Amino acid sequence: MEPEVLRRRLAAAGQGHLLRFWAELGDAERRALCEELQGLDCEALGACFRRAMEGAGVADRDKVDGRMEALPRAVLGSATRDAGRLPEWEREGLHQISQSKVAVLLLAGGQGTRLGVSYPKGMYNVGLPSHKTLFQIQAERILKLQHLAEKQHGTKCVIPWYIMTSGRTMESTKEFFSKHNYFGLKQENVIFFQQGMLPAMGFDGKIFLEEKGKVSMAPDGNGGLYRALGAHGIVEDMEQRGIWSIHMYCVDNILVKVADPRFIGFCIQKGAECGAKVVEKTNPMEPVGVVCRVDGMYQVVEYSEISLATAQKRSSDGRLLFNAGNIANHYLSVPFLRDVVNIYEPQLKHHVAQKKIPYVDITSGQLVKPDKPNGIKMEKFVFDIFQFAKQFVVYEVLREDEFSPLKNADRQNGKDNPTTARHALLSLHHCWVLNAGGHFVDENGTRIPAIPRFTSGKPDAITADVNCNLKDANDLPIQCEISPLISYGGEGLEKYVENKEFHAPLIIDENGIYERVKNSV
Amino acid sequence: MEPEVLRRRLAAAGQGHLLRFWAELGDAERRALCEELQGLDCEALGACFRRAMEGAGVADRDKVDGRMEALPRAVLGSATRDAGRLPEWEREGLHQISQSKVAVLLLAGGQGTRLGVSYPKGMYNVGLPSHKTLFQIQAERILKLQHLAEKQHGTKCVIPWYIMTSGRTMESTKEFFSKHNYFGLKQENVIFFQQGMLPAMGFDGKIFLEEKGKVSMAPDGNGGLYRALGAHGIVEDMEQRGIWSIHMYCVDNILVKVADPRFIGFCIQKGAECGAKVVEKTNPMEPVGVVCRVDGMYQVVEYSEISLATAQKRSSDGRLLFNAGNIANHYLSVPFLRDVVNIYEPQLKHHVAQKKIPYVDITSGQLVKPDKPNGIKMEKFVFDIFQFAKQFVVYEVLREDEFSPLKNADRQNGKDNPTTARHALLSLHHCWVLNAGGHFVDENGTRIPAIPRFTSGKPDAITADVNCNLKDANDLPIQCEISPLISYGGEGLEKYVENKEFHAPLIIDENGIYERVKNSV
Repeated sequence: MEPEVLRRRLAAAGQGHLLRFWAELGDAERRALCEELQGLDCEALGACFRRAMEGAGVADRDKVDGRMEALPRAVLGSATRDAGRLPEWEREGLHQISQSKVAVLLLAGGQGTRLGVSYPKGMYNVGLPSHKTLFQIQAERILKLQHLAEKQHGTKCVIPWYIMTSGRTMESTKEFFSKHNYFGLKQENVIFFQQGMLPAMGFDGKIFLEEKGKVSMAPDGNGGLYRALGAHGIVEDMEQRGIWSIHMYCVDNILVKVADPRFIGFCIQKGAECGAKVVEKTNPMEPVGVVCRVDGMYQVVEYSEISLATAQKRSSDGRLLFNAGNIANHYLSVPFLRDVVNIYEPQLKHHVAQKKIPYVDITSGQLVKPDKPNGIKMEKFVFDIFQFAKQFVVYEVLREDEFSPLKNADRQNGKDNPTTARHALLSLHHCWVLNAGGHFVDENGTRIPAIPRFTSGKPDAITADVNCNLKDANDLPIQCEISPLISYGGEGLEKYVENKEFHAPLIIDENGIYERVKNSV
Repeated sequence: MEPEVLRRRLAAAGQGHLLRFWAELGDAERRALCEELQGLDCEALGACFRRAMEGAGVADRDKVDGRMEALPRAVLGSATRDAGRLPEWEREGLHQISQSKVAVLLLAGGQGTRLGVSYPKGMYNVGLPSHKTLFQIQAERILKLQHLAEKQHGTKCVIPWYIMTSGRTMESTKEFFSKHNYFGLKQENVIFFQQGMLPAMGFDGKIFLEEKGKVSMAPDGNGGLYRALGAHGIVEDMEQRGIWSIHMYCVDNILVKVADPRFIGFCIQKGAECGAKVVEKTNPMEPVGVVCRVDGMYQVVEYSEISLATAQKRSSDGRLLFNAGNIANHYLSVPFLRDVVNIYEPQLKHHVAQKKIPYVDITSGQLVKPDKPNGIKMEKFVFDIFQFAKQFVVYEVLREDEFSPLKNADRQNGKDNPTTARHALLSLHHCWVLNAGGHFVDENGTRIPAIPRFTSGKPDAITADVNCNLKDANDLPIQCEISPLISYGGEGLEKYVENKEFHAPLIIDENGIYERVKNSV
């Protein structure tokens, strides 16, 4: 397209300013900008912008808060309250897996910016004894589940792994998988695709320039998943493979039970088109979105949309009324997903997030870094499509068993960082060993209690404060790591640990059992 | 007593080694040692040692674990499940207070060793906007309760405050209170007394020397409270003042509801001799002792005595079966306390804690700092006397409202430290303001949601990870501190905040309302 044609099209859409610095650009920059601008459907964007802005604002937020209803018990499965049904759900899930009807869909677009690294989060190693990355842990869980299902049903099976990256993370992610031979998975069963981008706009709908020859683009929210699935023909690939159930999750949860057979089995038995795995929110002020109904339709209401009075509401059993904390772990049936991609998602309005967006000032040509929000980012969320499911269910699990996200770098009093993620996994695996009949002993051969006592290690421990029974929780967890190739969820460990005593650190992997040699330091 | 008489008495009790270095000591040292040794009842100590050692050991621990029973619902009051009864309990408690029948008993023997300071913990300032210390916060809560009770019942009243210090903290504590004019309380109503000490012993029952002329002494556990109450005639003082109800607590909890009228009222209405305030334990691995029954008798079972299988047991409602987390907040009636001091406590066995105890080697005269446990400390716990109560009750409250202990110095990924304590209080007071109809606004005058969104503050926030709905919880709380002199538990704030908008930090105290002046930095 000639720049003049482009200029007219942009001007007609009110975006003529994007070519303001054309005269200053070199040939290569001009080509790049042209390509970028030709990829933008400015008319459609303008329409999205107007619809999104209509729906925004405080009035609407107040309304959502008042329209929230709790989940009916009938749609809820619970790992604690329905403990008796877990074996049945697990059998069902493994059966589905054994028939190659289950796939995994990973949202892995995030870079580790807040973690302090510039590579994809899935490549992060939180410092486990094995030094495994999040990607490797998840890959090995998939491998183990395939083995478990094959063993139980005597048929070969595959759990395909669909991985959505962003423009920034695609190349490094693919390279990382290739370098590690797909962690033992078959390359053909690991399918990468890329999330879309949308331009950032001012409150007036004008698109920002990031540089004189570059539009300011941002990922289109995790709900961009559905657009990306459509754009890359992923649903067709799933259908060709005969997939029925999809487990969708987020890369940063070190405890994620990838393709969790209990969750899959529960959703299948409930005939669900869509389901959400949740953990109990126990503190009203906890910043977690909650799954609930609004006007009778299921959705996640984000914590920032809830008033304190609503967040504090309780049921007669003392629990928070809105306690289904969203952990970005969802179930989708493929037929439902096809309709989502083709029919429902395009109907969704974008959410508007006000942001501080650096931009090139059109008058001065200077880069401006605003100190308050100056524009919006339009995004959709994966859970926006819950409302379209004819049968929607919720499955509650224990946080300590299944959820420990990696968000931030380690720092004083931090949360959701490499240390908390590492401790969560070590602590869970420590429990697995105890529950399988193993024991840990200290340097004197004395068995260590399940919850060890605080010992300062200093010889003046005798003067330590004893005025309270509730001791601090700074105790380091017992170092214990079980490879996912050995156990998916704690099962099958008896033959390794029952009635045995170990010195931590203990590692059990496909090569054997390693423990600290007694009296070594 | 002549050294020779002392020598014979010690030798007869198997403690003759304590005079091993007599010849090397100067006159002053000899006098001090004599005095110390004459204060020891070596025969009684020996008997305690033998009884304590009999009860110790792994076999006994295993037995306790198997004998635990959950609390019957009949003894349980809950701030959430019995929310409808809170006004009635509060009225009853304030009525008791108005009649000067309620006293407060503070365990304040701990030094801030783990906090990194050498003075009593109560003197610590966690960095609130007001810079108040724990002692001041607690004193002001007592003052406010007196005012509330007086206002409601039109009678003057007093809540006496009994403060147990240790040998190491007595002088500095008294000085601190005196310097601050008892924070507005009357000096005669603040009564200090001192916890006892016991010598540290080897596994053979031999008492250790800390120096050649000094016995190694350690506080006798928080259960030493009862011996100290007897030794200092505290129960008689309570009786003379006409006290019926005692609220006992530990200095390090910044949220402690001193003399909580709801807790007092609940215990009174239940006709309880003794009660424990608890918070729900939600994670089996949490290091907290639990209130339960063992052989039908109430007690606290420490976390280190419980097997994982027992800790993981759940009721049909999905809650942990043993979930009554002890927070060292107890109710005692004075008649019961009198019996405890005179009859029950002396029957209790000491617990044995293995410790690394530095000692002077009797052969070489050298100070030895052992690197593994070489001896024991005998202690009793305040909750050991629960079993003797004819009527025992348990009152469950919300952790975020009432419990945030100060144990450790700030450090990476730390817990129970000055930052967590400060945040807990600011966050609670923030909730009070919202619940009283106040609002906080940001620099642009926009109302801030109850649970604010994460904002990195960086201009590149637009690229922040949006792949998960569960955001991190590193948000700093809104700075909001309400003086206890203004509100004890969130009540009465409407006249200050209703329908008003504030810029944090907000401070409300007896001198007025302070907020950040708009647009200041």
